[in-house]
Amino acid sequence: MARLEFWYDLASNYSYLSAMRIDQLAATAKVDIEWRPFLLGPVFKEQGWNTSPFNIYPAKGAYMKRDMQRIAVQRGLRFQLPEPFPARSLLATRLALLEEADDWTRNFCKSVFIAEFALGEDISNPDILSNILVKLGVETAEALATAQSPALKKRLREHTAEAIKKGVFGAPSFITEDGELFWGDDRLEQALAWQSNQSTYSLKEKE
Amino acid sequence: MARLEFWYDLASNYSYLSAMRIDQLAATAKVDIEWRPFLLGPVFKEQGWNTSPFNIYPAKGAYMKRDMQRIAVQRGLRFQLPEPFPARSLLATRLALLEEADDWTRNFCKSVFIAEFALGEDISNPDILSNILVKLGVETAEALATAQSPALKKRLREHTAEAIKKGVFGAPSFITEDGELFWGDDRLEQALAWQSNQSTYSLKEKE
Repeated sequence: MARLEFWYDLASNYSYLSAMRIDQLAATAKVDIEWRPFLLGPVFKEQGWNTSPFNIYPAKGAYMKRDMQRIAVQRGLRFQLPEPFPARSLLATRLALLEEADDWTRNFCKSVFIAEFALGEDISNPDILSNILVKLGVETAEALATAQSPALKKRLREHTAEAIKKGVFGAPSFITEDGELFWGDDRLEQALAWQSNQSTYSLKEKE
Repeated sequence: MARLEFWYDLASNYSYLSAMRIDQLAATAKVDIEWRPFLLGPVFKEQGWNTSPFNIYPAKGAYMKRDMQRIAVQRGLRFQLPEPFPARSLLATRLALLEEADDWTRNFCKSVFIAEFALGEDISNPDILSNILVKLGVETAEALATAQSPALKKRLREHTAEAIKKGVFGAPSFITEDGELFWGDDRLEQALAWQSNQSTYSLKEKE
């Protein structure tokens, strides 16, 4: 089956929107989703930012909140921004990579996104993450210890480096098997259409 | 009839996308469009930028070109970026305000967008603008002189100040009668739905 890479940061609010709907849309489009968590921090640093552009540019930040509210209502989702925003997503992201199976990453990350953006919880807090792990049937203490292992730290660094190498500059991003990059929750349908060849586009060659 | 403000810069490629489709979508939604040209330059300056973010952030700029190509093909539009990008849109924008009627602004601006983004012409060149004026049946020399008048310069400054006051931070932007701001060609349908009350949103009160 065709595969589409879904690149996201657990602290990214627009990634939350995509995470909540990508499985259903992908099933309809007959596309498998590779869940690829990474850290936006190093990506933003390459652009000279030390925090989210929503914090650096207040008009953009105010707009984003209203945009999120409108879309959340339209899709029947709860939405609030956690404090602080963006949340420190490092520990949660390492946990997301505990197992290399997409199923693990998907289930864990959806729970993290809901805790953070539907309930406003602090996902840098190990207690919040432990609650999620327990519900997923995971040995909590062991998982938290493994998340601090050099192997997991390395895996996350590799993920983030791969994202940058592939041209990712924001989240969510979607990359098709033939290397097309789509950025933003509002490009998800287009990315799936491209990958599943149910596309209406005739543009398949590169510039 | 319900009215929606369409704020755009003549040098903005995503504004081109909206200009080419907004009339048809608005007719279907039974919404009148107010064409509101303004200058992004002063808006960007407020954010500390001295050119388009597509030039400041190369990964974003490269992505924008590919995104535009894909969407243009999908919609049957020609697309190329003019050199230099962004074009100096000052003279063209003043001409767009020659008459206060939406029809004048709409017809002139569509021609400018096509010259610029379909044909790659330099819209800071008075000869290019003269060609457009002639085709619209306008006394060219007089129009170009009027465009340099204090009255037109003032009108454009007021437009841009109004945009900033209303929270506009990029283009295209759409503002409904009840003050909702939508940013980006990909929010055009949502803005029209909000204004025409054919909306599926129940969120009508402010935060």
